[in-house]
Amino acid sequence: MTIFSELESQVRSYSRSWPAVFDRAQGSWMFDEDGKKYLDFFAGAGALNYGHNNPHLKKVLIDYLSDDRVVHSLDMFTTARRDFLEAFSKNVLEPRDLDYKVVFPGPGGANAVEAALKLARKITGRESVVNFTNGFHGMTLGALSVTGNSMKRGGAGIPLVHATPMPYDDYFEGEYPDFFYFERLLTDMGSGLNQPAAVIVESVQGEGGMNAARAEWLRNLAELCKKHEILLIVDDIQMGCGRTGGFFSFEEAGIVPDMVTLSKSISGYGLPMALTLVRPELDIWEPGEHNGTFRGISPAFATSAEAIRRYWSDDTLERSTVAKGMLVESRFNALVAAYPEAGLTAKGRGLARGLQFTDAQQAGQVCAEAYQRGLLMETSGPDSEVMKILPALTITDEELTHGLDIIDQCVAAVLGNG
Amino acid sequence: MTIFSELESQVRSYSRSWPAVFDRAQGSWMFDEDGKKYLDFFAGAGALNYGHNNPHLKKVLIDYLSDDRVVHSLDMFTTARRDFLEAFSKNVLEPRDLDYKVVFPGPGGANAVEAALKLARKITGRESVVNFTNGFHGMTLGALSVTGNSMKRGGAGIPLVHATPMPYDDYFEGEYPDFFYFERLLTDMGSGLNQPAAVIVESVQGEGGMNAARAEWLRNLAELCKKHEILLIVDDIQMGCGRTGGFFSFEEAGIVPDMVTLSKSISGYGLPMALTLVRPELDIWEPGEHNGTFRGISPAFATSAEAIRRYWSDDTLERSTVAKGMLVESRFNALVAAYPEAGLTAKGRGLARGLQFTDAQQAGQVCAEAYQRGLLMETSGPDSEVMKILPALTITDEELTHGLDIIDQCVAAVLGNG
Amino acid sequence: MTIFSELESQVRSYSRSWPAVFDRAQGSWMFDEDGKKYLDFFAGAGALNYGHNNPHLKKVLIDYLSDDRVVHSLDMFTTARRDFLEAFSKNVLEPRDLDYKVVFPGPGGANAVEAALKLARKITGRESVVNFTNGFHGMTLGALSVTGNSMKRGGAGIPLVHATPMPYDDYFEGEYPDFFYFERLLTDMGSGLNQPAAVIVESVQGEGGMNAARAEWLRNLAELCKKHEILLIVDDIQMGCGRTGGFFSFEEAGIVPDMVTLSKSISGYGLPMALTLVRPELDIWEPGEHNGTFRGISPAFATSAEAIRRYWSDDTLERSTVAKGMLVESRFNALVAAYPEAGLTAKGRGLARGLQFTDAQQAGQVCAEAYQRGLLMETSGPDSEVMKILPALTITDEELTHGLDIIDQCVAAVLGNG
Amino acid sequence: MTIFSELESQVRSYSRSWPAVFDRAQGSWMFDEDGKKYLDFFAGAGALNYGHNNPHLKKVLIDYLSDDRVVHSLDMFTTARRDFLEAFSKNVLEPRDLDYKVVFPGPGGANAVEAALKLARKITGRESVVNFTNGFHGMTLGALSVTGNSMKRGGAGIPLVHATPMPYDDYFEGEYPDFFYFERLLTDMGSGLNQPAAVIVESVQGEGGMNAARAEWLRNLAELCKKHEILLIVDDIQMGCGRTGGFFSFEEAGIVPDMVTLSKSISGYGLPMALTLVRPELDIWEPGEHNGTFRGISPAFATSAEAIRRYWSDDTLERSTVAKGMLVESRFNALVAAYPEAGLTAKGRGLARGLQFTDAQQAGQVCAEAYQRGLLMETSGPDSEVMKILPALTITDEELTHGLDIIDQCVAAVLGNG
Repeated sequence: MTIFSELESQVRSYSRSWPAVFDRAQGSWMFDEDGKKYLDFFAGAGALNYGHNNPHLKKVLIDYLSDDRVVHSLDMFTTARRDFLEAFSKNVLEPRDLDYKVVFPGPGGANAVEAALKLARKITGRESVVNFTNGFHGMTLGALSVTGNSMKRGGAGIPLVHATPMPYDDYFEGEYPDFFYFERLLTDMGSGLNQPAAVIVESVQGEGGMNAARAEWLRNLAELCKKHEILLIVDDIQMGCGRTGGFFSFEEAGIVPDMVTLSKSISGYGLPMALTLVRPELDIWEPGEHNGTFRGISPAFATSAEAIRRYWSDDTLERSTVAKGMLVESRFNALVAAYPEAGLTAKGRGLARGLQFTDAQQAGQVCAEAYQRGLLMETSGPDSEVMKILPALTITDEELTHGLDIIDQCVAAVLGNG
Repeated sequence: MTIFSELESQVRSYSRSWPAVFDRAQGSWMFDEDGKKYLDFFAGAGALNYGHNNPHLKKVLIDYLSDDRVVHSLDMFTTARRDFLEAFSKNVLEPRDLDYKVVFPGPGGANAVEAALKLARKITGRESVVNFTNGFHGMTLGALSVTGNSMKRGGAGIPLVHATPMPYDDYFEGEYPDFFYFERLLTDMGSGLNQPAAVIVESVQGEGGMNAARAEWLRNLAELCKKHEILLIVDDIQMGCGRTGGFFSFEEAGIVPDMVTLSKSISGYGLPMALTLVRPELDIWEPGEHNGTFRGISPAFATSAEAIRRYWSDDTLERSTVAKGMLVESRFNALVAAYPEAGLTAKGRGLARGLQFTDAQQAGQVCAEAYQRGLLMETSGPDSEVMKILPALTITDEELTHGLDIIDQCVAAVLGNG
Repeated sequence: MTIFSELESQVRSYSRSWPAVFDRAQGSWMFDEDGKKYLDFFAGAGALNYGHNNPHLKKVLIDYLSDDRVVHSLDMFTTARRDFLEAFSKNVLEPRDLDYKVVFPGPGGANAVEAALKLARKITGRESVVNFTNGFHGMTLGALSVTGNSMKRGGAGIPLVHATPMPYDDYFEGEYPDFFYFERLLTDMGSGLNQPAAVIVESVQGEGGMNAARAEWLRNLAELCKKHEILLIVDDIQMGCGRTGGFFSFEEAGIVPDMVTLSKSISGYGLPMALTLVRPELDIWEPGEHNGTFRGISPAFATSAEAIRRYWSDDTLERSTVAKGMLVESRFNALVAAYPEAGLTAKGRGLARGLQFTDAQQAGQVCAEAYQRGLLMETSGPDSEVMKILPALTITDEELTHGLDIIDQCVAAVLGNG
Repeated sequence: MTIFSELESQVRSYSRSWPAVFDRAQGSWMFDEDGKKYLDFFAGAGALNYGHNNPHLKKVLIDYLSDDRVVHSLDMFTTARRDFLEAFSKNVLEPRDLDYKVVFPGPGGANAVEAALKLARKITGRESVVNFTNGFHGMTLGALSVTGNSMKRGGAGIPLVHATPMPYDDYFEGEYPDFFYFERLLTDMGSGLNQPAAVIVESVQGEGGMNAARAEWLRNLAELCKKHEILLIVDDIQMGCGRTGGFFSFEEAGIVPDMVTLSKSISGYGLPMALTLVRPELDIWEPGEHNGTFRGISPAFATSAEAIRRYWSDDTLERSTVAKGMLVESRFNALVAAYPEAGLTAKGRGLARGLQFTDAQQAGQVCAEAYQRGLLMETSGPDSEVMKILPALTITDEELTHGLDIIDQCVAAVLGNG
């Protein structure tokens, strides 16, 4: 492993928790170079919703490449781009009665967020944005400025201004009415809040600690934005593409955001790809006003189109995700009950789930134990106090149960035998 | 083509100049869905230095995917990452006596720039950066703030501050000494220039109009930075990976930047990948202080390692690029001479070449003529006044000559028969 | 009046409500050029706490000028400066057991605020400041950025960043615990709140609508700041110099701010003068790091020293102010009771008092009626919904009662005979 | 002197060079409390153009105060304000054919600058401002951001952005054409310069080292601004009110700025007062959009009106100032000639004059020697390398010669006998 420590920057992080050298992967399993196998409850931080090297998508991908079809095309028209747009329109937008223009903002989630923020500011002529406590939206300057984590913010090296944080759902554990503060500031001409161009929000905060907003809270937020002519951006980079059940995490709430960001699992195969969806009347860009080299990675379009057709032409996957999510929830609730003095809390929605520890260190210890037992999962939350699982949506019940059994063992190892 | 206009944002640009729907590509050729072929002098804006679907890389890529090797890995250790680091170290860094730590900053060039700027600010505790007139570094907020183009800057929607532009080489056509103004501001305690953390510069400005800095200017810049303890960042996203001859565009000048950004052709196959290289003593990140979902796209590592081994283990490609560049130069010089009243200027270095028109519209007209004749090339420069060519480095002499012949015809069509 | 409309900018405001041309003034009375007299319940927006042309101060001032003593001295040592410092130290600081260094920041309140913010940022190395809803601190960029009023903020012409508003006392009418939100953001490492250098607060918000903070709230704020190592700046520009009873408005709460700003009535005679008080260990300025032409207006020092000696060597004025304040309060409470359907609210502390109208327009109408009846008073609050009175502290009981009688008439004229 | 060191912040600066305690002053003389007298070549940093306690103005001032006329009036109409406006219009604006609206922006120069910048941004909808190397405009955040001095800028505690410095006249000692760089950046759509709302400039830079711009340079600047629709703000705070001869320092150049700031000597007596003059069509403020407590200090209006009538109803003072300035110039030129090896440079215009030393320390030493000999003068320039004199315009020829004789002695004492 010398080469890594010699050559790679010390900014690397996952390789510190999981020092294995991984080589192959299939479905929910990863294999290191010594052949040891690991059940993957991390799934590329949500980038592998259909599992590693999903065989259906793999076939499409290899065929695409074998036929020497266009790989890199910026924003030129390609048959792959058309195929993707058709699949996305027919299977995702139309059935949900959603009318969006598609921006290809660049290869990653931060590009999608930057594009949304730029466009929101252009549309409204305002600079300020409202974000939420413990939100995470990316590491480029624009995206970082609406991200909560103080260590990550500190890395910017310049003051991150132009954003004001508001309390996310349940920030005060239900004690105070939703948006009582935000709305008061908006309506008070002397509040000192710069009128925001947009609100950016996640339906479930993954990095923030698997905090799931209630549907009602999201609806109230959407209404508040409409009332005050603020654009609503839902960042569905981690929670979209079926992670919480429906294709979009906000479907359950019945809202229609002004803009939506997608990335991570949108290609279906772990390839870089991102989208910013905008309501048609908001599409006021000049040609080329936002651009980028990697806006047209056709192999990603090919796997994306296939994933969408295969998994989103009916509700099989959605129902399966919800069911599996409920299984996880019941197992986590059992742990909460089994260790009453440990102060555990089960969190999340769909297959984005977390187990929060009162003693933050224990969450990390459980993950370390899991790695020893061949299970990959990580922590999240401001103090890394939440054990987070994001299994592939295509995980089998047996695999899921196997992983949950390991978690039981790890929790027991850390907390004592209940 | 209805689906594109119906669904895609009007921010799209290349598809306006080239309304064909492209389907397949091989080497220096692209094919639209009707089978019409186009000679590609654009090469993915420099992302396809080894041609479309390079067969050597294609084999490696398909093998990699076929074997179900890890595709997506964030910053986990993988065999593919190790293989890339070894190839890069052995064939790129060591022979050039360069000692850099490698940051995987995210999938695209803007990520590489954002990471460099963040780290430079963290290291120095200063916020300001000096950029150069007509520089281009990307479209996320941090990268955009050091980019010159006013239309693109306007898209930010907030004031882009923290950067002060200085004149690029030859900005005054040799009339004034290099850095006379910059150095004066640095040494004058009352100049009002915020002491910069870093200078960010391209050796050849591609988007800025194919402006090639003299080696001496780059050396003077490096010395100035050293003298005033300012970090020197060379953005080699478009001009690195052999575009100007050597692997890095700054080799010719014999300088060693504090940080280097790479992207575009680094994967060799048009797949998203980016690197930020930093001198070891500058690698002061905290683990995870910069991160991102697409920092470990192993198929790109695989093609990158193969491209590096194949093309950079000796100087064959470098010599070929220089030779082909000289061919282009002589042909462009001939055009300059043939149309004395048109005020043409030949620009660029290596296989990054431009032909500047006094009447900016003519540059676009020549490109439009070229498209009609099956040749893809675009304009650049602040007024789109430069006809720009970035052929694959692997282009054959015949193909190159064929394209240059078409250019002759197009120029004649626009300017009249000389 | 042609000359005013011809020559003066339309930014003027008070002359719109009170179109008389004033010529002379004495104590609580102003006289226009036609000899009409007006009882002044405005007192220079709090700059004339000892009345117009206070005869004791006038004598000192004319003597000072007659003797050709130094008028303008920047920050040179003068006998007048020494005399002021001695009087201030002996009568204001020492009896209150306060240990402050005195900064002479420039002629006006905004200079005092700018100096405090600059020093707080220098001390802490942080950029962000927390202000409060409906706070008012001045019109220069630094002071304006911590001011709430949206019309005034809009005048800045650049985004006002670096400040985050928090709810002032009673912003939610007692429904939520003090600082529940602020403290939560400070302790949550993922909140997205930039760690503030300082909090800036008024004990009573004059421009904000005569909102008086409870002593307990101020104590809790001081504790919170101490706990989180945030500097506490009390802006006592309008509410200091005895306006609420004690010399400093925060005395009642028993807190010791890290910095205090004073201006308005500090000279005692309406002459421009301002102070920034800082705890000795915070006085880390370099010589000349903050400066200004009008830091040493000695006539103002002379009247200030005399005012301090005359009015602050015992508690006569303080007791009188409190008593007069209670008289106003009882009269305002009577109005509240007399017009139950009008939804009036009595506000303020000491001789800073307000009567808030549910129908904002009525506040302005009452002031207009008062002007017709020879009484000067203005509105404040985000919607100009508060009728505000700031009589000279030296007003006689007869004058005060006379003015309050006029107010009764005006309220009746606007609301009907109750 | 204990009280000063015990109570006053260490930010104080002039009292370090001149540790006397001053008590009285008359004309060009100051007297310390021990009766020692000092010839004042500093004149309140330009705030005392008519000398200390000018007897004509003193009489008006004492009469005004004795009659209990209004002292403090915010922006209410007063007879004093009308009298000032009439005198200013008749004697200053009309004879020069200038058409300006008068803003009373607050008590000091920084307020005048802040008001001008705010209005320029509001008018143009742009945020950026161009300032000049070694410009000085004040210490509040907006004014500081266009000031050059790095120590003063550092005191801001936040990045000072929104301004880009351009080279002042003769910054390159005549080697390069005026505005070659500025104009190039303005016309190049890829330069990266944010289109400025305004340019702010001093005709002679006092703090910057007594740098006098040529009339031609100012005219070229005015033309450039007009051509590019940038507002031209001349900051005449130190150099206006006759300091260079004419009332406005820009008269000689024959330009008409869009906005002009005045302060320092505008009251004539060292009392705080400031004006922002704006062309009528630019007066787009909302009522109250800029305000402040000390916008109407009537005693300052009274002395100002008297000073204007007495000194600006004919050209006596102007001619006298020019003549005295030429006397100083010839004496300084003689010093330059007398000490060829010392590399002295005579600088300035009118009665704003400087003697620049190659060895910066010598400038300070000369000033220290002068203080010992009873002459008050200070240094300026980025390295404090310029011995600066700003005598009262009312100084007698004898006094002026006396001071210049002392300077000869001091220079000899420092440089040796030539």
